[in-house]
Amino acid sequence: MKIVLIRHGQSTWNLQNRFTGWVDVPLTEQGESEAHRAGRILKNQGYEFDVVFTSVLQRAIKTSWIVLEELQQMWIPQYKSWQLNERHYGGLQGLDKAETKAKYGDDQVLLWRRSYDVLPPVAGPEVNKEITNDRRYQGLSLPQGEALKQTVERVLPFWESSILPEIKKQKRVLVVAHGNSLRALVKHLGQISDQDIVHFEFDTGVPLVCELDEKFQLKSKVFLKES
Amino acid sequence: MKIVLIRHGQSTWNLQNRFTGWVDVPLTEQGESEAHRAGRILKNQGYEFDVVFTSVLQRAIKTSWIVLEELQQMWIPQYKSWQLNERHYGGLQGLDKAETKAKYGDDQVLLWRRSYDVLPPVAGPEVNKEITNDRRYQGLSLPQGEALKQTVERVLPFWESSILPEIKKQKRVLVVAHGNSLRALVKHLGQISDQDIVHFEFDTGVPLVCELDEKFQLKSKVFLKES
Repeated sequence: MKIVLIRHGQSTWNLQNRFTGWVDVPLTEQGESEAHRAGRILKNQGYEFDVVFTSVLQRAIKTSWIVLEELQQMWIPQYKSWQLNERHYGGLQGLDKAETKAKYGDDQVLLWRRSYDVLPPVAGPEVNKEITNDRRYQGLSLPQGEALKQTVERVLPFWESSILPEIKKQKRVLVVAHGNSLRALVKHLGQISDQDIVHFEFDTGVPLVCELDEKFQLKSKVFLKES
Repeated sequence: MKIVLIRHGQSTWNLQNRFTGWVDVPLTEQGESEAHRAGRILKNQGYEFDVVFTSVLQRAIKTSWIVLEELQQMWIPQYKSWQLNERHYGGLQGLDKAETKAKYGDDQVLLWRRSYDVLPPVAGPEVNKEITNDRRYQGLSLPQGEALKQTVERVLPFWESSILPEIKKQKRVLVVAHGNSLRALVKHLGQISDQDIVHFEFDTGVPLVCELDEKFQLKSKVFLKES
């Protein structure tokens, strides 16, 4: 059994080096190219999928659409969930990473970025209102800022309720999401420690093929890159 | 209550004037432009959707994706069903329309194109094998050639089981499909006769806004075009 995970291609805020989180920024041209490349690599290796899961953020959805078009598998069912969204970066969302370091210090920023459970500052009312008023999140009890720990705590219920049942039905699953929601999945599948998972990096638009054993635990993982 | 119907943008076989049916040809560049225009028109008029339905054919799916991107509503749930596919054109699929007229005569071709219940010739084994072997149709009892009557007979159960329940829940529904599967819907909603429906034309990529009464019958329909 295999599951393929792809982090979305480069977004405009990846390029500008800003904390993004739940802010719904588009892919850059390079990000679209990365998505095409991911699709071509999977196609060349003969991958077929039965179902695709994405977040509700456009950078993941657009990446998935480009991949499915390259694969000529646009017709497979697609499910989009906020539970696969990027880590909610709270009050850091929108801030330039260099400016944030200047303001809070390198150590604090490193702690926010690479600790497992240190929460970011909560989002200010404007940033927060934009998200809570967004109709895609109506009726949900939303985070206002997450460490990876909180991201894991909402990704895993979705894994259990929605993704794992497909794998148990022998479906070939593709997940297109974000650095931290994918870390949450890999942490769970590979029983990776809180300390180690924060250092596991996904490049944008590079498929990670995860092979699972009969207990749905990670047997091996390999990034697919063009040689 | 409103429902918006869009026929996919121009496909490569629309351009080549060939019978297409279930053959999964892509949009032309013009077809993509038409989809962008449809999305812009809907956006300019403030349309919001809660759910989108398409066929499993890429010309409809790609059109829907372009429309959703223009609308910045890429995150809404999307359902894809073979029951919204174009009319299955049987043995005519792939044939040039002019050559078909030369071979069978204008009257016969007109009968196939514009009668309600005259079946096309059945598909030859090669054409048919390509479709029946396609994994998106595995396990289904497939038509081998349809008149509009047969298309109506598989679109309506999908309307009843999948689309109408969303409308009853006050969801704002977008359907992106094909000339004949959309005719099937309009025929049902408007109680249009067998004779009249075959003359109702959808231009590629032009949204049709259908207003429904409390019995989910057509109160009015209007095409949205740029002025």
